[in-house]
Amino acid sequence: MRMSAFFLPTLKETPTEAQIVSHRLMLRAGMIRQTSAGIYSWLPLGWRVLRRIEQIVREEQDAAGAQEVLMPTIQSADLWRESGRYDDYGKEMLRITDRHEREMLYGPTNEEMITDIFRTFVKSYRQLPLNLYHIQWKFRDEIRPRFGVMRGREFLMKDAYSFDIDAAGAKRSYQAMFLAYLRTFARMGLKAIPMRADTGPIGGDLSHEFIILAETGESGVFCDKQWLDLDVLAEAPNHGDDLQAFFDRFTSIYAATDEKHDADDPSTPKDLVSARGIEVGHIFYFGTKYSKPMNAAVAGPDGEPVLVEMGSYGIGVSRLVAAIIEASHDENGIIWPDAVAPFKVGLINLKPGDAETDRVCGDLYAGLGASGVDVLYDDRDERPGVKFADMDLIGLPWHLVVGPRGLKNGTVELKRRATGAREELSVEAALAKLIA
Amino acid sequence: MRMSAFFLPTLKETPTEAQIVSHRLMLRAGMIRQTSAGIYSWLPLGWRVLRRIEQIVREEQDAAGAQEVLMPTIQSADLWRESGRYDDYGKEMLRITDRHEREMLYGPTNEEMITDIFRTFVKSYRQLPLNLYHIQWKFRDEIRPRFGVMRGREFLMKDAYSFDIDAAGAKRSYQAMFLAYLRTFARMGLKAIPMRADTGPIGGDLSHEFIILAETGESGVFCDKQWLDLDVLAEAPNHGDDLQAFFDRFTSIYAATDEKHDADDPSTPKDLVSARGIEVGHIFYFGTKYSKPMNAAVAGPDGEPVLVEMGSYGIGVSRLVAAIIEASHDENGIIWPDAVAPFKVGLINLKPGDAETDRVCGDLYAGLGASGVDVLYDDRDERPGVKFADMDLIGLPWHLVVGPRGLKNGTVELKRRATGAREELSVEAALAKLIA
Repeated sequence: MRMSAFFLPTLKETPTEAQIVSHRLMLRAGMIRQTSAGIYSWLPLGWRVLRRIEQIVREEQDAAGAQEVLMPTIQSADLWRESGRYDDYGKEMLRITDRHEREMLYGPTNEEMITDIFRTFVKSYRQLPLNLYHIQWKFRDEIRPRFGVMRGREFLMKDAYSFDIDAAGAKRSYQAMFLAYLRTFARMGLKAIPMRADTGPIGGDLSHEFIILAETGESGVFCDKQWLDLDVLAEAPNHGDDLQAFFDRFTSIYAATDEKHDADDPSTPKDLVSARGIEVGHIFYFGTKYSKPMNAAVAGPDGEPVLVEMGSYGIGVSRLVAAIIEASHDENGIIWPDAVAPFKVGLINLKPGDAETDRVCGDLYAGLGASGVDVLYDDRDERPGVKFADMDLIGLPWHLVVGPRGLKNGTVELKRRATGAREELSVEAALAKLIA
Repeated sequence: MRMSAFFLPTLKETPTEAQIVSHRLMLRAGMIRQTSAGIYSWLPLGWRVLRRIEQIVREEQDAAGAQEVLMPTIQSADLWRESGRYDDYGKEMLRITDRHEREMLYGPTNEEMITDIFRTFVKSYRQLPLNLYHIQWKFRDEIRPRFGVMRGREFLMKDAYSFDIDAAGAKRSYQAMFLAYLRTFARMGLKAIPMRADTGPIGGDLSHEFIILAETGESGVFCDKQWLDLDVLAEAPNHGDDLQAFFDRFTSIYAATDEKHDADDPSTPKDLVSARGIEVGHIFYFGTKYSKPMNAAVAGPDGEPVLVEMGSYGIGVSRLVAAIIEASHDENGIIWPDAVAPFKVGLINLKPGDAETDRVCGDLYAGLGASGVDVLYDDRDERPGVKFADMDLIGLPWHLVVGPRGLKNGTVELKRRATGAREELSVEAALAKLIA
């Protein structure tokens, strides 16, 4: 993509309405635009990141054996009356009356709807286990939306729902999602720590929050120092293996939010790290909490009806965009982890109009594109300082800088955004390195 | 995907509530489930098709130079008051009041919101032309929703919006979308015919509907016989070329809906075909209809403000799923065009439990998967007749049938769903053919 044609409305000033760094940087980098309180449009740069994150979430759900569906945003109030949650939910639920005066709502979550789909179609234990997920916009009418997409009203969430014939099966489903979540966040370059959590309005028996470490995070966190060195992707077993040992190990290393942490408890480890974090996922095992009132039963091996054991598993997809920025930025802007970067390479032409510089930039742009590398080519007629500042702000992992002075010596400069490390390379070597 | 684990709730009986063939087949094939009047959940098979269609739409929008964004579903009523459409829209607009008693609505379209984004960020003619699109769920509170996803209330639409400094630029933007639309539908295996249309509530000066031919289509259509032989993909120029000649040619060949057709008009061609069709896209050039009331102006070359010339361009993405079925089915079920098929190959194991049949099926499943071919493997313990019927119903393009009798001769059977043509092939030859 050529920057001269790219719709990237970066801001020079820091927006005063934004209280946290990710909100400020998303506005300054032209990623989002608020359209109503707590409701945002995603501009091209922001949309690219959102899609990358969504795709990693999807791949790990698929790898765990979950199947993707898509439920609608608008639900009937009747379904929520069956579970008893219609009245419980309060003003956070956006309630709607349609033209026929039917009571509807904008779904804040989908336990009721998926349970209705399940009970309609699944009749036998032989069709279990089953895990269905979707990635869909939700609405929660927060009284005071703030912090940008971190706590918006309309937000994108991945929610999965597992169905099993018994508690042992449900525990396996829970462990598979536990593994998928650790893998998902690790692939995004995040250090995510599962913490035993209260189940809240979802209800149930067992629950973990996944909190990623970020210096500017919303909550205080205490954890065993071991967490900092754990390599989830190296240790993770395969789906299909028995996950019990993995689950036991990763739930036994100490971690607690500051509300739950007790320094005087003898089980608290000595090697303790105090940090800050952001919740990005939450998983629940809640047995028959929904299957019972909604009568979601299947025929068991003996032909008798059995209420299914359920769990639900959420990831805040749009929230993750902000959470990643909280975890990865510096005073100059965003530092995207490679896996979620909107473009891999920012190509900077230091002197548009200089024939040789234009030619080399054109060749690099074409060569990288032909190899499937996403490049944002800054071909604008702007001063180098403006280009460097914008490129740092939007945080692409690699900056490839091409100018007449370097080209006289046959070199271009390659900078790694995360470390600031720079090297002078021949055009061919730079190309080879970025394609590799 | 193994069918024994795939959530594919096919129905044996024809649902009585469905009046048109696509609705019946989508229900029977386990693609969708109605959750409220005119509101549907997409089950895994339907979701796969919806995503394929969405991806083709996206690729052709990108190729035409449009840039993807994502606007929210919930909009502020104030924006619609600026354009004057808040009162005009009537009861089809789903109106919502939030917890602070602010008037909101579920967007039926996005002219106002995109114009607001544009006027906030774009200040100079040098930033034009600009075309922004998104693929997002919309809501229209139809008084009598019917025909399944063909006329649902919550539906997925691609809508693009172009901004130009003058009418000549706007015409070029219109022509680029005209070309993109013809390419989009042709890639899906559809014969789409652009027809001069009224502009309706969107307003404006120039408009075309794109109608695909389908025997069971909703509207009568008359067109020049030439249309049947036109090969859009062969004739299409490149984006960036002057599109005037292409546009002139494709708008000059006679086509009209039955309301507009006049058999006595001397311009009506002799070689006329009477057919039926379904509207799947609609494009509009409407000049300053929105930029004027909303004051979306940029500085022109002389520094004076100029109201931008706009167009909007819609494709009914969820509607296309049904429209394709209307255009491509037989008495046994759906016939998916290759480009949108949920899986390319249906692999049928005629005798699960037979060691050699299981082994060959397992090898084929693994071999096709390793080559990136999407396969649905019917490994269920069901009679062959049930498997053949289900596979015809869900309409995968290729059926690969493996049983002990064929294997004795070293062969498997490959059937093309669209034609019914069958051939006996060695396992290797079948694999090679499907991978090619």
